[in-house]
Amino acid sequence: MTQKLAFIGFGVVGQGLAEILRDKAEQLHEKWGFAAKVVAISDPIKGALYHPDGLDISTVLDVIKQTGRLDDYPDTFGLIRGWNSLQTIRESNADTIVEVTFTDVKTGQPAIDHCRAAFTSGKNVVMSNKGPVALAYEELSALAKENGVRWGFEGTVMSGTPSLRMPLVSLAGNDIREIRGIFNGTTNFILTQMEAGMTYEDALRLAQQLGYAEADPTNDVEGYDARYKVVILAKTIMNVPLTTEQVACEGISHLTRDDIESAKDQGKRWKLIGRVQKQGTGAVAKVSPELLPLTDPLAGVAGAVNAITYDCDLLGPITLIGAGAGKTETGFSLLIDLINIDRGHI
Amino acid sequence: MTQKLAFIGFGVVGQGLAEILRDKAEQLHEKWGFAAKVVAISDPIKGALYHPDGLDISTVLDVIKQTGRLDDYPDTFGLIRGWNSLQTIRESNADTIVEVTFTDVKTGQPAIDHCRAAFTSGKNVVMSNKGPVALAYEELSALAKENGVRWGFEGTVMSGTPSLRMPLVSLAGNDIREIRGIFNGTTNFILTQMEAGMTYEDALRLAQQLGYAEADPTNDVEGYDARYKVVILAKTIMNVPLTTEQVACEGISHLTRDDIESAKDQGKRWKLIGRVQKQGTGAVAKVSPELLPLTDPLAGVAGAVNAITYDCDLLGPITLIGAGAGKTETGFSLLIDLINIDRGHI
Repeated sequence: MTQKLAFIGFGVVGQGLAEILRDKAEQLHEKWGFAAKVVAISDPIKGALYHPDGLDISTVLDVIKQTGRLDDYPDTFGLIRGWNSLQTIRESNADTIVEVTFTDVKTGQPAIDHCRAAFTSGKNVVMSNKGPVALAYEELSALAKENGVRWGFEGTVMSGTPSLRMPLVSLAGNDIREIRGIFNGTTNFILTQMEAGMTYEDALRLAQQLGYAEADPTNDVEGYDARYKVVILAKTIMNVPLTTEQVACEGISHLTRDDIESAKDQGKRWKLIGRVQKQGTGAVAKVSPELLPLTDPLAGVAGAVNAITYDCDLLGPITLIGAGAGKTETGFSLLIDLINIDRGHI
Repeated sequence: MTQKLAFIGFGVVGQGLAEILRDKAEQLHEKWGFAAKVVAISDPIKGALYHPDGLDISTVLDVIKQTGRLDDYPDTFGLIRGWNSLQTIRESNADTIVEVTFTDVKTGQPAIDHCRAAFTSGKNVVMSNKGPVALAYEELSALAKENGVRWGFEGTVMSGTPSLRMPLVSLAGNDIREIRGIFNGTTNFILTQMEAGMTYEDALRLAQQLGYAEADPTNDVEGYDARYKVVILAKTIMNVPLTTEQVACEGISHLTRDDIESAKDQGKRWKLIGRVQKQGTGAVAKVSPELLPLTDPLAGVAGAVNAITYDCDLLGPITLIGAGAGKTETGFSLLIDLINIDRGHI
């Protein structure tokens, strides 16, 4: 069955998914029996299109590339323009909402409201916005269940690297007692550069030049981004409630070349580690720089890459290493949610 | 629904699964809704038991521990003794056959015949024997499909580390163009010891003392074990046919301390790498020692551990590191197949 999609927001991540759907439609259908069509796009700046029979995704991407907006998408019989996000979610014939708005991670809005509207309208949601999972996981997962729809958010932790689906599907049966990982590629890039001889300031500047770090790098370098991911992992993989306030957080901005060198002398390496450990019925968690021995698989992870180790009672430590960001990588995180909704799989 | 299991063979791996089922029954049921009962065990040396209402797994394990055989399992009304493997497969009321016989990997027997009998009797099979997948994948997967049953073999490549299920479920949508990995823990242990200063001969002797290597280590050190795993990965993940004869194979027994030291001087490390790469409609594959730069995630994998990197068109390289052997780990590989059969998942 062709899954009908409505994109709410159409920035880099949404376009990343749209490009995959355009470029790989045939392969997805042949190899995985997956088919999707985009029936709506609603973006507060770029404009909005809805056609119950589907939009032409190549034309959409061309028009966006040329004008930055959707206005020049050609008129066709039945095309509706100008629907806002909530109207699109409620009134379109989409099966699944691709929620890729610019969302304030501190409030989770507007993505939380979009999830509520979608679930109560009987529509699935896939998204990579962290806020709704970190802040409203219990409410929203219950609401999705109640309405018999699915909520996919693989991309919230390590982009398309399957840090959520892999343990849920493939490590089921293990008691996962601890999870720890490198959840922020920007800081890992900076630490790798510092090991190669740069100062913190120079490494940060390079990260900004390469587009890994934002002009205000606080969210990355102080560990706040990693903290959200730790909370999401605690809730979804360990099934323990945890708020961001409960996660002690220390970043890397105070680390000096001396710290890096003295670690080297000890045969160790500084990494910004997010860590959550089960304790009784709850969990303790923190984000902080840790001195890892070089034998730790996380110690070898270099550059703007993410990695995670699950400590399993039956299997022992299982480590997954891969991209933690990127247009295509995060676009894929939405695709894998769509594919597994289609399969009726986790 | 409680899944009824018949164990064909009851050595280390089978007992590993039985112990998990005994020790974690309650948690498996509460957290994953999974329940199983063992209705039959048939082992050519230890004896055979069948009871359609189920055997008491604790008693079975106690009796085996004390006597090495099943004869002392107490008589109960309805208990049948002495059925051979094929009779157990065909005539028991099991839903799923746990195929854990001692199987010759070169012929795949008796496991291949057991799979055929199970599928044509409408029973699922889970197993960790490599032979049937390496030698008869096309026939057996078609036969399982035709009979509407499932065939799980997660444990054939990296024991319980989900080297097969992870890509099939969580990387679907990617074209995986190349797979490479450390598929043999024994040789990786030897190479790690050689880096720490041992000769090949001493490292091998230590591996034998620790039970990692067999008295005749040929299968591990010449790369034959890794070669089977490469063939299984090519067939199941890349969907390309490949025979073991088509995989060039070179082991580590010729590597000297000098080779290891000269690699160190170049900032590199020797690893026994299995590699398969798509080429046209087929694939090229080999097993050989490779000099890896230390920045490669596989270079950092130390000791008796396995690791695999999937080169994905959308996601880039994804690496998974974990156990490649062990009683509980391989027992878990069977459990995760059972759990996902129960869920109706891949």
